[in-house]
Amino acid sequence: MTQLPLSQDQIESLNAQGREALEDDYGSLGRQLGRRGIDIDAVTERVASFSVAIPSWGTGRGGTRFAKFPLAGEPTGIHEKLADCAVVQQLSRMTPRVSPHFPWDKIGDYRALREEAAELGLGFDAVNSNTFQDQAGQPLSYGAGSLAATDPAVRAQAVEHNLECIEIGRQLGSTALTVWVGDGSNFPGQQDLSRSFDRYLDSAATIYAALPGDWRMLLEHKMFEPAFYSTVISDWGSSILAAQQLGERCQCLVDLGHHAPNVNIEQIVARLHRFGKLGGFHFNDSKYGDDDLDSGTINPHQLFLVFNELVEAELNPRGGFDPAYMIDQSHNVTDPIESLLSSAGEIAAGFAKALLVDREALHLAQESNDTMMAFQALRQAYRTDVTPILAQARVGQGGAIDPLAAYRQSGWRARKAQERRAVGVGAGIV
Amino acid sequence: MTQLPLSQDQIESLNAQGREALEDDYGSLGRQLGRRGIDIDAVTERVASFSVAIPSWGTGRGGTRFAKFPLAGEPTGIHEKLADCAVVQQLSRMTPRVSPHFPWDKIGDYRALREEAAELGLGFDAVNSNTFQDQAGQPLSYGAGSLAATDPAVRAQAVEHNLECIEIGRQLGSTALTVWVGDGSNFPGQQDLSRSFDRYLDSAATIYAALPGDWRMLLEHKMFEPAFYSTVISDWGSSILAAQQLGERCQCLVDLGHHAPNVNIEQIVARLHRFGKLGGFHFNDSKYGDDDLDSGTINPHQLFLVFNELVEAELNPRGGFDPAYMIDQSHNVTDPIESLLSSAGEIAAGFAKALLVDREALHLAQESNDTMMAFQALRQAYRTDVTPILAQARVGQGGAIDPLAAYRQSGWRARKAQERRAVGVGAGIV
Amino acid sequence: MTQLPLSQDQIESLNAQGREALEDDYGSLGRQLGRRGIDIDAVTERVASFSVAIPSWGTGRGGTRFAKFPLAGEPTGIHEKLADCAVVQQLSRMTPRVSPHFPWDKIGDYRALREEAAELGLGFDAVNSNTFQDQAGQPLSYGAGSLAATDPAVRAQAVEHNLECIEIGRQLGSTALTVWVGDGSNFPGQQDLSRSFDRYLDSAATIYAALPGDWRMLLEHKMFEPAFYSTVISDWGSSILAAQQLGERCQCLVDLGHHAPNVNIEQIVARLHRFGKLGGFHFNDSKYGDDDLDSGTINPHQLFLVFNELVEAELNPRGGFDPAYMIDQSHNVTDPIESLLSSAGEIAAGFAKALLVDREALHLAQESNDTMMAFQALRQAYRTDVTPILAQARVGQGGAIDPLAAYRQSGWRARKAQERRAVGVGAGIV
Amino acid sequence: MTQLPLSQDQIESLNAQGREALEDDYGSLGRQLGRRGIDIDAVTERVASFSVAIPSWGTGRGGTRFAKFPLAGEPTGIHEKLADCAVVQQLSRMTPRVSPHFPWDKIGDYRALREEAAELGLGFDAVNSNTFQDQAGQPLSYGAGSLAATDPAVRAQAVEHNLECIEIGRQLGSTALTVWVGDGSNFPGQQDLSRSFDRYLDSAATIYAALPGDWRMLLEHKMFEPAFYSTVISDWGSSILAAQQLGERCQCLVDLGHHAPNVNIEQIVARLHRFGKLGGFHFNDSKYGDDDLDSGTINPHQLFLVFNELVEAELNPRGGFDPAYMIDQSHNVTDPIESLLSSAGEIAAGFAKALLVDREALHLAQESNDTMMAFQALRQAYRTDVTPILAQARVGQGGAIDPLAAYRQSGWRARKAQERRAVGVGAGIV
Repeated sequence: MTQLPLSQDQIESLNAQGREALEDDYGSLGRQLGRRGIDIDAVTERVASFSVAIPSWGTGRGGTRFAKFPLAGEPTGIHEKLADCAVVQQLSRMTPRVSPHFPWDKIGDYRALREEAAELGLGFDAVNSNTFQDQAGQPLSYGAGSLAATDPAVRAQAVEHNLECIEIGRQLGSTALTVWVGDGSNFPGQQDLSRSFDRYLDSAATIYAALPGDWRMLLEHKMFEPAFYSTVISDWGSSILAAQQLGERCQCLVDLGHHAPNVNIEQIVARLHRFGKLGGFHFNDSKYGDDDLDSGTINPHQLFLVFNELVEAELNPRGGFDPAYMIDQSHNVTDPIESLLSSAGEIAAGFAKALLVDREALHLAQESNDTMMAFQALRQAYRTDVTPILAQARVGQGGAIDPLAAYRQSGWRARKAQERRAVGVGAGIV
Repeated sequence: MTQLPLSQDQIESLNAQGREALEDDYGSLGRQLGRRGIDIDAVTERVASFSVAIPSWGTGRGGTRFAKFPLAGEPTGIHEKLADCAVVQQLSRMTPRVSPHFPWDKIGDYRALREEAAELGLGFDAVNSNTFQDQAGQPLSYGAGSLAATDPAVRAQAVEHNLECIEIGRQLGSTALTVWVGDGSNFPGQQDLSRSFDRYLDSAATIYAALPGDWRMLLEHKMFEPAFYSTVISDWGSSILAAQQLGERCQCLVDLGHHAPNVNIEQIVARLHRFGKLGGFHFNDSKYGDDDLDSGTINPHQLFLVFNELVEAELNPRGGFDPAYMIDQSHNVTDPIESLLSSAGEIAAGFAKALLVDREALHLAQESNDTMMAFQALRQAYRTDVTPILAQARVGQGGAIDPLAAYRQSGWRARKAQERRAVGVGAGIV
Repeated sequence: MTQLPLSQDQIESLNAQGREALEDDYGSLGRQLGRRGIDIDAVTERVASFSVAIPSWGTGRGGTRFAKFPLAGEPTGIHEKLADCAVVQQLSRMTPRVSPHFPWDKIGDYRALREEAAELGLGFDAVNSNTFQDQAGQPLSYGAGSLAATDPAVRAQAVEHNLECIEIGRQLGSTALTVWVGDGSNFPGQQDLSRSFDRYLDSAATIYAALPGDWRMLLEHKMFEPAFYSTVISDWGSSILAAQQLGERCQCLVDLGHHAPNVNIEQIVARLHRFGKLGGFHFNDSKYGDDDLDSGTINPHQLFLVFNELVEAELNPRGGFDPAYMIDQSHNVTDPIESLLSSAGEIAAGFAKALLVDREALHLAQESNDTMMAFQALRQAYRTDVTPILAQARVGQGGAIDPLAAYRQSGWRARKAQERRAVGVGAGIV
Repeated sequence: MTQLPLSQDQIESLNAQGREALEDDYGSLGRQLGRRGIDIDAVTERVASFSVAIPSWGTGRGGTRFAKFPLAGEPTGIHEKLADCAVVQQLSRMTPRVSPHFPWDKIGDYRALREEAAELGLGFDAVNSNTFQDQAGQPLSYGAGSLAATDPAVRAQAVEHNLECIEIGRQLGSTALTVWVGDGSNFPGQQDLSRSFDRYLDSAATIYAALPGDWRMLLEHKMFEPAFYSTVISDWGSSILAAQQLGERCQCLVDLGHHAPNVNIEQIVARLHRFGKLGGFHFNDSKYGDDDLDSGTINPHQLFLVFNELVEAELNPRGGFDPAYMIDQSHNVTDPIESLLSSAGEIAAGFAKALLVDREALHLAQESNDTMMAFQALRQAYRTDVTPILAQARVGQGGAIDPLAAYRQSGWRARKAQERRAVGVGAGIV
């Protein structure tokens, strides 16, 4: 029996205050969309069935190498993190799964954790392994690499950790392993660029071989950081070549902040899909590097263009279409719950707008090289305010019309600041 | 019987003046390299056998969309261009091949042209097709694309042009076709990103099928320009996937200025080689975009690091190693012959320095994660002044100790300014 | 008596078909804004009084250094260009001024031109000088620079051209001179970076001294192109230091595409305003470099953030607030009239959305470091669909509800394709 | 009486082994330079008098937000850090000053620390304040900014800390305060871009007013990180405007890694110098962002071009020339002493090469727009191997011919790994 963390009555009472305005807005938008030949309720239904996973670590304050500024009441263990995820899900109804990270979320009994999550209305998404940090008591250091290390014992340790993640994930009900490594170099010459790739592939193949039959392995590329000269899986090219080599159930994961400046990310999405290797997304936004800012805060149009490709891909599945969606942000200056609520909304808005594109008009304009009308087909959808659709989709499932207002009204964080132990001053992401 | 354009006596008389200094420098460097366990003469021999092709169009002034500032005496047809290429080759002895471009170099009799080149000591390198511009009298426009155009008649025209290039190249003694297209879009939505790639592949497959058995097809990617939102073959990932699909004799060509900011190009070289698709290079340098500046003028260290990968690749050929080297620069503010002389020297210097790397020390340091010593192995080579080696390699083949001085002394350009017809004011590259 | 180019009856007849839908949308939005405490009619009034100038050259097809693909019926002289500008103004009612460029728009009688424009409902905006190209018959070349050239005679010629532009502008009723130069270098060492700046300042001071008392001089910086290593006025820092040195009526012009990758342009706007040097804008959009794409097509959110700063600046004028707005785009693949219509709408949308920001809530959240609510104050405004406001503002002044549809219905371009002489194949911007 | 940390005998004994080779190389280079009209000993003398400060924090392992991998034997307090700095100075003879950072280097008795340093042959350079982190026990948090915070009490605390730094620096013999703040925002709207700059200026003015009469205040700009949307002093434009406002003894500090991609840093150096605001440098190298890699490892040519501007600036001091030089690197994967030794050499090499430029030829070529020869004047200097000059300059002052070899032979780190307490696993820079 599900035990949601916030008072559902309070949420509904707040919804009641906003209902009339929502009905006006939803009705107006419905008439407008009707004039465009779109049934708003069908769109709302699609949006209501959309979901994106939350990373367990995203519920705490993140930081930079310079500093982390803790938030009173932020969670410090997987149990508290799950509770915060449940708050996000209760209000947004778009984040029913949590993506765990090991060893950060390590505990004794994963079957019990799965039940605990289920009671909160949550399940588990892709498992994330971590071989970019050393843990206290770890036999060998990843200071010179992990899956691509020159020392075979280090590689074996890193492989072993991934196998353990698969085993934990199996107990949690996951069906995917996300592998991101920091392996790379800070100096020209530090590593042999080809041999380190060979070693990576060799280690990854061992992990892939251990994958349960219904699992996927998702490779996540990143241009730089923590390595600042070269990175083993630095771009989508390296990622897809590795995925091709590893096997059919190995696919590529796109983190929106892991690319070179100016790169056309939506085209990368299209390419990965065309070659059957579009595995999933880590949603966030960025202005400079892997800034891990809240999704859609910097460039919401790019988010829309990515979803436009995803909607196209679903209509043209070629070899299949089943991307895993996860938020991956570093909440350095906000209450993480608020950022996750806001981000889930921005992501869903990107999806909703992509659904509004008049694809017949778009394709016709594309085929006839009517550039302006092809663009206008996208722009008409993008400029539509889909707020009423998102609110209706939430409300229809018991969520909040205005999730941020409902969260603030709940007093959740202040209460937790009383109950939870404080996090110390420091730096970094954990 | 070869008829070189400049007075060989004059070159040798200038060399005589510099010989003593060269001997001192070469001797000193030889002793230094000897202390490092390197035989300077062996290096000089390798450098003497190195060559890079010159693009026929590089012999004229280039320009931007804003303006082109013509140079008195610049060549206006393939015959004059060949003469200028011969000047570069006579002085540098590192540029024995010319890469032609069609229709810019179109004439009536290609067998005669081949003989004309041979008499100047020149042969022909990869043929370049052009479907990014419209030519006067051309039936259909490339304004909406060429190999990836939605209109099948436009695609057919573009394919046909490439087949004609192959036929011309066959007559000229070429064995490679370089395909760069400007196909892409300036607006989100303008083109379907996947379908345009499908069309490109389809057209390219027809060209590939027509390739003579001993030819290669080189795909050249470019991030942007002339298209400023998306480009069909925009990065090495798209390029290698296309090359894999097209066939074994289709490979990827790396132009140093066609990448996103900050990208690690030497790692791209390593990746392409590892997957058997390193086809060749268009050498130039850049600071902002596809600036087409003279090779090594902005970032000579990057050029060295690229050659370091090439030397590694040659030692570990995996599936083979035979990259085609060409200069591809836009000489907007210099005498193109001077830029080509200088660039050939910078490129050869990158190669020479890469030969000086103590690879045993490098590999040992890499294997043992001795980062500082691995870097120092590269840096020791990079900081070596290889000027005497290059001069010796040139002199040994009849070239000039100081090609720029010899060229200036020859009075070539002033003479041509008298003989050749003037180029008008305008904009662009032709 | 104004003679507008299109049939006003036809426009109004099309408007009649769209009126009911517009009333529904405008009414709905009005109620929604009313709930937020905003009077929609007041916003519409502000938007109706907003205007942006059109560059005369923007009415023709633009191109790259590789190619230009002419459009049948594009204008070839200032008279035809004015006609096309009048079409844009008649439909959009937001572009009542034309920014001329010399020598491209050179003719005999500027007083007559001013009357001709007035009859079309147009006036003249800032005059643009051109010393980045050579013109046929020009005594000295700008190949080695213009205002910053080492040759004093070249500098004098460039200054003289600017003085002539001022004189022409005076006759046309302009009150501003925009100075953009391509002066810079392609090689390290080519120019002395300080001395060339000295020379620029010296030349610019002579121009500034000739400025009529009610005129402004607008300096336009650009990171690169046509120079690819250094540019004399490459960034806003160089621009504002030059403007400070030149005098009070010298200000800085921001072209949205002239910055380094990732730069926060809205902060540059804030800085220029704070130091009293915000002179104006060249609106366009870009993904890679100075792509000169249509405004708001790539990053409409950035356009909104710029206008958010402008609305803030107007509320806090400090030393004054009077920026000049101009569109500056290169229409390579569309009908320029359609691009200008679309762009005027996107720019006005950015302005309209900035007017919708709840500034009291924003400032309160900023002061109390309530990051999420500060962001939401902006985002609520940004996500609002202001289409009905823009349409209402246009209709209220005689423009079209749907300018693109009205333009297409008018058959203008097809008619002009019959009447106007064809433009030849070529490259570049003119 | 100076007590150097390493055995001077051992250094000299190693030098003895290398002397003959050095003499050969130095003699050869001397003859070559002589042929170019350059007296090698004069250059060596200039290089011998060159120095660059070491940051106290640079002696320990740095890290990223993801991880820090400690090094056995790295220093943990200012006393151990000084010892390591003394090792660098003893071997390189180019790093006689240490730049301290507070509160990281906080201790009880600064006069005693000054004496301790003097005994090690060291003095103190610019003092660095830190208001980008919270310290245990600090009354107010910098989580929402420091000098630009909205809360006046936070600003006062940050100002107070800077005043304390000045007081400490006075005791240490410093004459400069370097101010770098992380103030900025992660969300559009989070901060008012103009008002935050006002607050920064206001706080900085209070600090400036407290500056001793012979001190300078150095403002350090940075594009991003720790703030990822806007930063108060994000670029040289903001920095110089602030410095102009604050007063004559306020100048700008250039960190080579704090700029937007592709930016021409040497031109920024030239601009700052021209306007009398070139205060100093933080040397490091980078490929992507503020990577803080070892100086000259990624782009040694850029380092040379910066020094070329510095040599020009010294020859044309305009309002004065006295930049402060400091290394500022994050040594994530090397022994910091080795990185500092290597970096001091790379920086000195950049300076030495800039001294070798034939400035008469350069200026003549620049004035006559002989682009190729202007470039060649720089390139001839750049390609010269100045290793013998650096070695001679070190040896002449008691340093090592080969500092890295001498350091490894000394066994310093292994000994310290026995003596010093271990640093724990973590993340970040301290």
